[in-house]
Amino acid sequence: MTVSTWQDASVRDGFAAIAKHSPFVYGLTNYIAANLSANVLLAAGAGPAIGAASDWTTTFPAGAGAVWINTASLMSSDEQSLRQVARTAHEAGTPWVLDPVAVGAGAAQYDEFVRSLLEFRPAVIRGNASELIALAGGDATGKGVETTASSADAVAHAAGLATRTRAVVAVSGPVDYITDGTRTVEVPGGDARLTRVTGAGCALGALTAAAVFATGDALQGAVVSHTAYAAAAERAGARTAGTGSFAVAFVDELSLLGRREANA
Amino acid sequence: MTVSTWQDASVRDGFAAIAKHSPFVYGLTNYIAANLSANVLLAAGAGPAIGAASDWTTTFPAGAGAVWINTASLMSSDEQSLRQVARTAHEAGTPWVLDPVAVGAGAAQYDEFVRSLLEFRPAVIRGNASELIALAGGDATGKGVETTASSADAVAHAAGLATRTRAVVAVSGPVDYITDGTRTVEVPGGDARLTRVTGAGCALGALTAAAVFATGDALQGAVVSHTAYAAAAERAGARTAGTGSFAVAFVDELSLLGRREANA
Amino acid sequence: MTVSTWQDASVRDGFAAIAKHSPFVYGLTNYIAANLSANVLLAAGAGPAIGAASDWTTTFPAGAGAVWINTASLMSSDEQSLRQVARTAHEAGTPWVLDPVAVGAGAAQYDEFVRSLLEFRPAVIRGNASELIALAGGDATGKGVETTASSADAVAHAAGLATRTRAVVAVSGPVDYITDGTRTVEVPGGDARLTRVTGAGCALGALTAAAVFATGDALQGAVVSHTAYAAAAERAGARTAGTGSFAVAFVDELSLLGRREANA
Repeated sequence: MTVSTWQDASVRDGFAAIAKHSPFVYGLTNYIAANLSANVLLAAGAGPAIGAASDWTTTFPAGAGAVWINTASLMSSDEQSLRQVARTAHEAGTPWVLDPVAVGAGAAQYDEFVRSLLEFRPAVIRGNASELIALAGGDATGKGVETTASSADAVAHAAGLATRTRAVVAVSGPVDYITDGTRTVEVPGGDARLTRVTGAGCALGALTAAAVFATGDALQGAVVSHTAYAAAAERAGARTAGTGSFAVAFVDELSLLGRREANA
Repeated sequence: MTVSTWQDASVRDGFAAIAKHSPFVYGLTNYIAANLSANVLLAAGAGPAIGAASDWTTTFPAGAGAVWINTASLMSSDEQSLRQVARTAHEAGTPWVLDPVAVGAGAAQYDEFVRSLLEFRPAVIRGNASELIALAGGDATGKGVETTASSADAVAHAAGLATRTRAVVAVSGPVDYITDGTRTVEVPGGDARLTRVTGAGCALGALTAAAVFATGDALQGAVVSHTAYAAAAERAGARTAGTGSFAVAFVDELSLLGRREANA
Repeated sequence: MTVSTWQDASVRDGFAAIAKHSPFVYGLTNYIAANLSANVLLAAGAGPAIGAASDWTTTFPAGAGAVWINTASLMSSDEQSLRQVARTAHEAGTPWVLDPVAVGAGAAQYDEFVRSLLEFRPAVIRGNASELIALAGGDATGKGVETTASSADAVAHAAGLATRTRAVVAVSGPVDYITDGTRTVEVPGGDARLTRVTGAGCALGALTAAAVFATGDALQGAVVSHTAYAAAAERAGARTAGTGSFAVAFVDELSLLGRREANA
């Protein structure tokens, strides 16, 4: 298994390519995570737009460099809007990231809807271990949006899901695992406080979309976004104590990572 | 009247019980306050989920340890969803907190809907003085979501409301008052800047739900959440000047309170 | 062309008038920007309420001191709610600010709806150069919510739009321009990192509404809000590096500007 760290030049180059190309990245996400997701994209140098405002759903996914859909966006958008965005991205050839937050947590109708989006061929599926095991058809049970399984447990399920859907599957945890079914990349590091910042996982979906555009590759894009996240979280963690200032420092570090690399 | 402070071992134990049990707490809240509410719950050690995404409204209130409903969530959810969550919580025996934000501010149809939720027997009702006087049938008039009455003025109304609804009623203000109609607990302290951080009151509703679960008691839960809030606000206020860094420091202090007590 | 800076007593007095009168300011905005918009208003001393919760849309615009409508609020409210708020404000004589975010970015149906709101006579229209050129009928093309034209390019279009709509038009950029079609005021300064804080432009619309109420004048109100923004951004920029702590420091500085002036 390959290990990716911020020391890898290919990772740093991939991250710098976000700021260099400054792609328009469009997403549907839930309103808890929307602010952080936009700020993470801006920190990395992308230009975000979020939400199902009028005919944005039919025009923006076609014009965007990349798209992400967090299925908890159903809390303010209808199923038709999510399908519209996924279908438009798929038909236009815009790569999109599926973030199936809280799938497998006990809401059967929601879970079924999440699965139905696989028809539109996401480039990357990202989530925590519980979510990805549930999506893969395993029986890990989440507790609301929290994970109750470890990311290592999820690797076999993730590889199977990747093979079946032809998507790259990225599992977040103490160590992240990213697989296309054949190759698997391990991303160590990070900081456990990320799990105590709401929307940090959702914002990683947004950043992954930007990185897939910037690198032109689903596996490499997911590796870049997850490795940058781990590096920024470590740096933020080293200089903060509470979860509030950790979250602020995390966005700081992402914005400085991007600037440093873009200027290098 | 009893006075509660962070020096009370029962308060510290009650707060530590949140991190110890890490309950799944589900809520419907408005999108202005949703992010802070989730971060406050995570800081205290609970696992939040928010929003009316598909059938979450019928499954999550039954599986959750506690629920909160902020009625301004009507800005992104329909009345049926709020009623669904309240009814499901009530029928499943899940304690729930009602936060009737801006009731009495002049929107008669909204006010009537807020009152209709009392049928589902909230464990705790929390708000500022204007809101609770209005809900109790008094004629204090709020100005949007701001209070124009003092919390001390609201105590008599709060006790009446508690007796009539059999809910614990918590009034936020320079001094907070918490009453079940018979006993009243006073929570002094805090910091006036909390009123200049949007959603801080709403997030207190979320934390109260977690504390009611953790203590197994509506009155004690409300006392714990309000006292922890006052302690965190005082500590944050002692080391910040502007309202932006105060808000960050407040979440920090809540997260450190929780960690310290859980490790004690 | 007049230049406005924070050194002007009329600007400082106008800003202090917000905290002095503490107006109730009501808005419809998108859920990405809602939290920051409310915190900016609270920092300045106004009392915000946001969102189309039940009959708030028909009662709050009439009772409010000022109103703002960010058209991306269509992502969680329907067209009827936005029209309701605009119509009610117009009929009640409540000044309102139109923020046509992302107009001209390629969503034709959305753009048409935005234009239809001009019927209700906003006091101020604010946006970036791309948006205002598009609204004026020019052919600058935005990229999602980002601007691709400079604010200086937009001045002629803005003056034409102001004359046609009888609204004050404010163009945000490295230098801001504010015009009623006859007089034009230039606001230099600020910090480029404001464009990397999501919702900072949207929150300026909210603050402009408060300042229009506080000064009793659309042109002066827009000059006050934009000049205070530039001053707070410069101060925040001088003491921070990353975009996360810049955003926190920006709210701090606004809250301290307000306090200092109100106490002077």
